[in-house]
Amino acid sequence: MPVKLLKPADEAYQYPLLIKQLLLSSERYGANNEIVGGNNGKRYSYAEFNQRVQRLANMLTEQGVKQGDVVAVLDWDTPRYLECFFAIPMLGAVLHTVNVRLAPEQIVYTMNHAEDKVVLAHDDFLPLLAKVKHELVTVEKYIQLSDSDTPAEPALATVGEYERLLAAALPEFDFPDFDENAIATTFYTTGTTGNPKGVYFSHRQLVLHTLTLAATTSMNDNMQLMQASSVYMPITPMFHVHAWGVPYVATMMGLKQVYPGRYEPATLLQLFVREKVTFSHCVPTILQMVLSSEKAQAIDFSGWQVLIGGSALTAGLADAALARGIQVYTGYGMSETCPLLSTTWLPLEASDFDQQRQVQERIKTGRPVPLVNMRIIDNNGRFLPHDGEAMGEVVVRTPWLTQGYLNEPEKSAELWANGWMHTGDVGTIDSNYTLQIRDRIKDVIKTGGEWISSLDLENLISQHPDIELTAVVGLPDTEWGERPHAMLTVKADAAVDREQVADHLQQFIEAGLIEKWAIPDSVTVVAEIPRTSVGKIDKKLIRKQLQTAN
Amino acid sequence: MPVKLLKPADEAYQYPLLIKQLLLSSERYGANNEIVGGNNGKRYSYAEFNQRVQRLANMLTEQGVKQGDVVAVLDWDTPRYLECFFAIPMLGAVLHTVNVRLAPEQIVYTMNHAEDKVVLAHDDFLPLLAKVKHELVTVEKYIQLSDSDTPAEPALATVGEYERLLAAALPEFDFPDFDENAIATTFYTTGTTGNPKGVYFSHRQLVLHTLTLAATTSMNDNMQLMQASSVYMPITPMFHVHAWGVPYVATMMGLKQVYPGRYEPATLLQLFVREKVTFSHCVPTILQMVLSSEKAQAIDFSGWQVLIGGSALTAGLADAALARGIQVYTGYGMSETCPLLSTTWLPLEASDFDQQRQVQERIKTGRPVPLVNMRIIDNNGRFLPHDGEAMGEVVVRTPWLTQGYLNEPEKSAELWANGWMHTGDVGTIDSNYTLQIRDRIKDVIKTGGEWISSLDLENLISQHPDIELTAVVGLPDTEWGERPHAMLTVKADAAVDREQVADHLQQFIEAGLIEKWAIPDSVTVVAEIPRTSVGKIDKKLIRKQLQTAN
Repeated sequence: MPVKLLKPADEAYQYPLLIKQLLLSSERYGANNEIVGGNNGKRYSYAEFNQRVQRLANMLTEQGVKQGDVVAVLDWDTPRYLECFFAIPMLGAVLHTVNVRLAPEQIVYTMNHAEDKVVLAHDDFLPLLAKVKHELVTVEKYIQLSDSDTPAEPALATVGEYERLLAAALPEFDFPDFDENAIATTFYTTGTTGNPKGVYFSHRQLVLHTLTLAATTSMNDNMQLMQASSVYMPITPMFHVHAWGVPYVATMMGLKQVYPGRYEPATLLQLFVREKVTFSHCVPTILQMVLSSEKAQAIDFSGWQVLIGGSALTAGLADAALARGIQVYTGYGMSETCPLLSTTWLPLEASDFDQQRQVQERIKTGRPVPLVNMRIIDNNGRFLPHDGEAMGEVVVRTPWLTQGYLNEPEKSAELWANGWMHTGDVGTIDSNYTLQIRDRIKDVIKTGGEWISSLDLENLISQHPDIELTAVVGLPDTEWGERPHAMLTVKADAAVDREQVADHLQQFIEAGLIEKWAIPDSVTVVAEIPRTSVGKIDKKLIRKQLQTAN
Repeated sequence: MPVKLLKPADEAYQYPLLIKQLLLSSERYGANNEIVGGNNGKRYSYAEFNQRVQRLANMLTEQGVKQGDVVAVLDWDTPRYLECFFAIPMLGAVLHTVNVRLAPEQIVYTMNHAEDKVVLAHDDFLPLLAKVKHELVTVEKYIQLSDSDTPAEPALATVGEYERLLAAALPEFDFPDFDENAIATTFYTTGTTGNPKGVYFSHRQLVLHTLTLAATTSMNDNMQLMQASSVYMPITPMFHVHAWGVPYVATMMGLKQVYPGRYEPATLLQLFVREKVTFSHCVPTILQMVLSSEKAQAIDFSGWQVLIGGSALTAGLADAALARGIQVYTGYGMSETCPLLSTTWLPLEASDFDQQRQVQERIKTGRPVPLVNMRIIDNNGRFLPHDGEAMGEVVVRTPWLTQGYLNEPEKSAELWANGWMHTGDVGTIDSNYTLQIRDRIKDVIKTGGEWISSLDLENLISQHPDIELTAVVGLPDTEWGERPHAMLTVKADAAVDREQVADHLQQFIEAGLIEKWAIPDSVTVVAEIPRTSVGKIDKKLIRKQLQTAN
């Protein structure tokens, strides 16, 4: 006998999960709150914001945007970008959040691949688009985004400037119902191999992600990220996994929101102080940059909650942040996962922990959030035990994962082998269900049948007083399969060679933290360690450079 | 052009919203927490709880329960009931939470109507079932639920006792995936007219309700109902709208949970103190009963958060609760709505309010929670303004509403007229989006083209010092359509007649709160005001009695 289903006749009352529903509560809860633009100083009430979303929908409809069309945005973080987060998918169109930090040829690739039809672009990106417009084969129209009340002549022909077009549009729009599995957003991952790959998320997925993130961010007594009193300022670009999906939560909850425009430390700090920001999220390097800026030294950061993701929160940064009164936490996820998978989970008694123990808790990759099914698997796809020792690839199932890569059937099949989404990360899970990411699976150094985490090794090497930054990669070795090799930057006037690194690692070998075969075969000191467009260490390039050198 | 849908090929990776997913995080977050049974003093870790759910699934499967079968439970509030909340729907079967307070003939009606196949019943209800078993035409098997380690001989033939059957079952069960629209639960509303009506909820609906409730219950700084440190004890029966769905949230969050068994003030208070309960929910009469019990006088209630629903939280009860340190709030919903629709929404500055203003804020029906689309409509189905004055029927749309009444097409069509679910409640919504329920639509007194809220009138009459309780109903009147009539109970040795009520109401007429035509045509003093099986004032019966008397 099958399960008893709701009857087909009942479908009339079914209520699809659509992004427009997230707006229902925005004005109810946020009647006294504003959405603030750091780009131009404009402030909008939630009533105005809701009207602007409707104006934008009318404006885009007048420009010919129809259901299924792809609308691209190239902008810094602004309230108008938030309007696009809602209006474009609510029309039934697809929002393409273009990664403006990609190389021009990659931007062209992604815009053609996504088949962008209408493009909203900030003045800063119009010159680039002017240069490549003949290569953009699907784009029909451009709209200018300007931070000035008297916009300059755009660098390429547009149908008009956003604010003027909005002002001319009606503030009422009856957003349609449609299938909740309609694609709402798409964007491209900045993998270090090959062309960027497009991921995509449906209305249903974004609504479920929003609800779960909202439930998670104030569930732990020691981690109260988002409540009615919170003031939210993202410092993760809105093109990067919808700023981790937090703007959807903040809007549903009607929170005060501050969009900083470009990420310049002075602006960020000024907005932080003036708008009394309580919650932000960013990659470690941004927090590092903000904290080390001169202006930051006089600022009282106490009570600022910062969720760190993108790459691992290091003990050093956590310690420095806590010392300034910043409550830092780890969030884990990636473009393919919408992104929320796990967060720091502080025990109830954590408020009594000393700073060192606080640091240790906060740098853990954390516990999977509700609805996330997470396992670690070995090379043969077998589940590994949760003992904190067994290291394997992290695989997940949850309702908000990309269903594949856009028009990449082979890579999609690989991503979803055996019905689990493969994160490409290697980690351990302990008996408390706490995940610790140890490395990217492609960066793990497989030597003589053993796995060495390149991250672990980098951490130990970095504790050498003369070393600034370390990247360790595995290079092919005929005898051992792979062997570790290190690239370093050193402090001014310092010099470090392989012998010194080996001497430094000796203490960790004696302490049982690593085996002696983990000592790198070579150490190369450089002026700057190669990074990708989003600031991550570019191990692909490092591998290439070291292979040539060695 | 249609919206871009996730491709059919992607369906392999779709992840249906199933109740089993709520269990994924239970042990991860609740590793150090217990589920406590007030019925028998047993305490279970979340690991044990998860095993018991699997044992129960094996046991029911062995007893022949298949997908689509209906399994009925007649029990007090216990951890084993919570196990049924999960295991039965997770099998693909339907959980029927039988209202044990109904009259025996109504219990029979609901069990036949729902087509119950296997029945789990507490010792207290087996004698009743023994009496009516020949009328229960679909039931094949009974399972005994006992609070004793040495269960007594059951009053009717069963296939065994729950704990013994569980002990004999394997602790591992591979719960299947199926359509998220599968019906998970059903139960019957205790309307005052006609037979009870069955409502039903799917897996998808319960998951969405759980996520939204979780997000809502800790979103407001001044209303922190459920966090990791919370200890939850329901005081709304689990047969009544799944104890408002909160057990699903508490389990997903891995909270410490306390199930009190029967609702006896001494037991409730003992558990409250011993288990350090921080959050409960109940109807006003239960809180009243607990507070006025002798044992309660010595207890420190400070910090207890209590969500009140089912009927309106009165100013008097809110005041008495706050005076004892209990943080009371209003929740609004009904059987048909799963039930969450709105809650008290305290402004940020509320922590500075004096007690009188606290009371006023907390007795408001509240603001609709995320994803709830709520309007008030007039007699012709037109939307009324949100001005706090216009009074109309509350209609809602949200993803967790019953899709109808089981096998009642006409009543279902009425419930869902024009694509909105009609709550049967009359209220106002103010410019802050705050709902205030004023009456049941069938209790509103329509006199000479005007609407009088029977609740408003009762509130004013009840302020007479000699009056204990008032019920006002409209009775047919040839000239005015309807006229108000009051039924009263008075304090010992007091006597109240119509003239005294009219004199008492004069002050409110002068203050402009009511018009003079609101004075009841008759006042009838009784020893006890008729109530329904769930303790609500039975206006249907009152109308009948007064019509006979007048």
